[in-house]
Amino acid sequence: MTKSYFRPEIDAMAGYVPGEQPKMANLVKLNTNENPFAPSPEVEKVLKNFNTEQMRRYPDPRADALRCAVAQRNGLEKDNVIVGNGSDDILTMIFRAFTSPDRAMAMLYPSYSLYAELAAMQGAKVIRIALAEKTFALPDDLLEQAKEANLLMITRPNAPTGNSFDISVIENICCSFDGIVTIDEAYADFAEDNCMELVKKYSNVIVMRTFSKSYALAGLRLGYAVSSKEIVEGLMKLKDSYNVDMLSQHIALAAYNDTEYFAARTAEVKEMRSMLKAELEKLGFYCVDSKSNFLFAMPPDQDGNRCFTGLRNEAVIVRYFPGDATGKYVRITIGNPAENARLLEVLRSMYA
Amino acid sequence: MTKSYFRPEIDAMAGYVPGEQPKMANLVKLNTNENPFAPSPEVEKVLKNFNTEQMRRYPDPRADALRCAVAQRNGLEKDNVIVGNGSDDILTMIFRAFTSPDRAMAMLYPSYSLYAELAAMQGAKVIRIALAEKTFALPDDLLEQAKEANLLMITRPNAPTGNSFDISVIENICCSFDGIVTIDEAYADFAEDNCMELVKKYSNVIVMRTFSKSYALAGLRLGYAVSSKEIVEGLMKLKDSYNVDMLSQHIALAAYNDTEYFAARTAEVKEMRSMLKAELEKLGFYCVDSKSNFLFAMPPDQDGNRCFTGLRNEAVIVRYFPGDATGKYVRITIGNPAENARLLEVLRSMYA
Repeated sequence: MTKSYFRPEIDAMAGYVPGEQPKMANLVKLNTNENPFAPSPEVEKVLKNFNTEQMRRYPDPRADALRCAVAQRNGLEKDNVIVGNGSDDILTMIFRAFTSPDRAMAMLYPSYSLYAELAAMQGAKVIRIALAEKTFALPDDLLEQAKEANLLMITRPNAPTGNSFDISVIENICCSFDGIVTIDEAYADFAEDNCMELVKKYSNVIVMRTFSKSYALAGLRLGYAVSSKEIVEGLMKLKDSYNVDMLSQHIALAAYNDTEYFAARTAEVKEMRSMLKAELEKLGFYCVDSKSNFLFAMPPDQDGNRCFTGLRNEAVIVRYFPGDATGKYVRITIGNPAENARLLEVLRSMYA
Repeated sequence: MTKSYFRPEIDAMAGYVPGEQPKMANLVKLNTNENPFAPSPEVEKVLKNFNTEQMRRYPDPRADALRCAVAQRNGLEKDNVIVGNGSDDILTMIFRAFTSPDRAMAMLYPSYSLYAELAAMQGAKVIRIALAEKTFALPDDLLEQAKEANLLMITRPNAPTGNSFDISVIENICCSFDGIVTIDEAYADFAEDNCMELVKKYSNVIVMRTFSKSYALAGLRLGYAVSSKEIVEGLMKLKDSYNVDMLSQHIALAAYNDTEYFAARTAEVKEMRSMLKAELEKLGFYCVDSKSNFLFAMPPDQDGNRCFTGLRNEAVIVRYFPGDATGKYVRITIGNPAENARLLEVLRSMYA
């Protein structure tokens, strides 16, 4: 085909590069913030007891059982909740709803790079708001920098840096910003607080959650957003009619209701995070204060790439983000005890 | 919220209305073209044997095992195939790629109304190309009517009419149209021929398939498209990173490989379609020549609404589309033998 029929915004985009899924023996995979534990045993029960005959039918288009469960736990109503095929699906709806060539998007930097790609697909301008060095704190003039945007993305706790932001500062932003504030809380279950209550006070706020991290269900693709009824109703228009399959709805609900297993595993991840941070500091690493299931860690020689490569040579895969703000660091997912031990063993051989 | 932050195209759209899922005793549900049979028994085996521990990991972002299987069966390569979270997901990618305020979409009328909604989300003009009365054949001047469009949607076999179009006419369209031709083959497994070979000859052609109808897996959300490598590569940029969950990839592959079960059940549906058509004609109905798993049928009094309502009062749900071109008809999904018998019983009481 000599002529392209694609929109120019799409032709201008770089091709999609899937995350690294290396095939190595004894691989220690600490690069995509997956949970070190298996999902709730209730998930297996759902699969074992599922009557496959019903799969010939379309699923509930709005996943109401799950919406009700989320609403009830947060003191909201079903119409405040929308469920997606992963948080990616929710993000796609949000960007299609609120960004366009004359509706800009503001995001933190460094933060989740997908936001900029989604804005590009819409032909929308991207405003990057730089975080402070080392602490990765919000700048005081964030609102001034974001003022031209129609959509402000806040990742809290942030990725890849792992730190959180003072909730009163976030509330002030929600109150003052003339546009939609989306708070992506993919990692909030590993933090001490979250922004769910802000949804009740500010009708321009969207809070996003996912089952990929804290529920150990990255393979499932289940995310949801909570917001005012007006926003949810508008996003519903952009949703694929049957965007969440029948099995995923059942599995997610079972995992969500197993609160005991969830609390125990999440506490363990947080405990291992403290242990791992202490051990890294012994080796001379600087670690950003993490409220997530990973550590953003600067090796003693401030060479993130060397650290990444040295680990990779020993089949330990972490994440390295080139660039001024991030190139001194590696991002390390909290693994299970054996994985963390192997990580430390390799790092000791490199830095001790 | 007094001010809307939504794009005006979204505010202008009507709210999404999920398909009717009535809760009635002894319901005979023949309104959404679901398969009357259960999916392949291989699906149950996948669920029973699935190790849920692996769900903590992200799925294969491109569903390569399934892409390879589809490519191999059709004499194509993996890079000619893209897999989606249902055909809806594929359609969303296609409309985001090829429609915009200055890139119009042409579609048949009557046909699948979702296309017009997807175009509206993009702010794209919709060109409706009317089919002939009663036969619902293509007009001779289709190319002339579609010439301003960048994207031409052909549904073959068509819905809700159920008829197909001469493949040589479709090939001529693919060869002559200056834009993308998408052939939505949701029902092609119930027809005698399909357009898969056209993909090999024309780089501007996309053929879409789904597991919802012939594989009895509407609950699963699995669709795919086959096209030139350039088109597939462009669509990949618009895909959510992990758009098909891990379980769905395994289930779809198992069902796809059970060719014997598939062939037997599809043949049965076609047999019941002939039987049902003959019985309806005995009652004075006119049925469009169907190559799908449903019949578009005009009752003797040419009052589709009365037929729909009369059936609904007896808990038999079919589909009625108001409007000049469609209001004289009802669309009836081929059910299982008991459902078809009950349908005919009610219709006999109304028309015999």
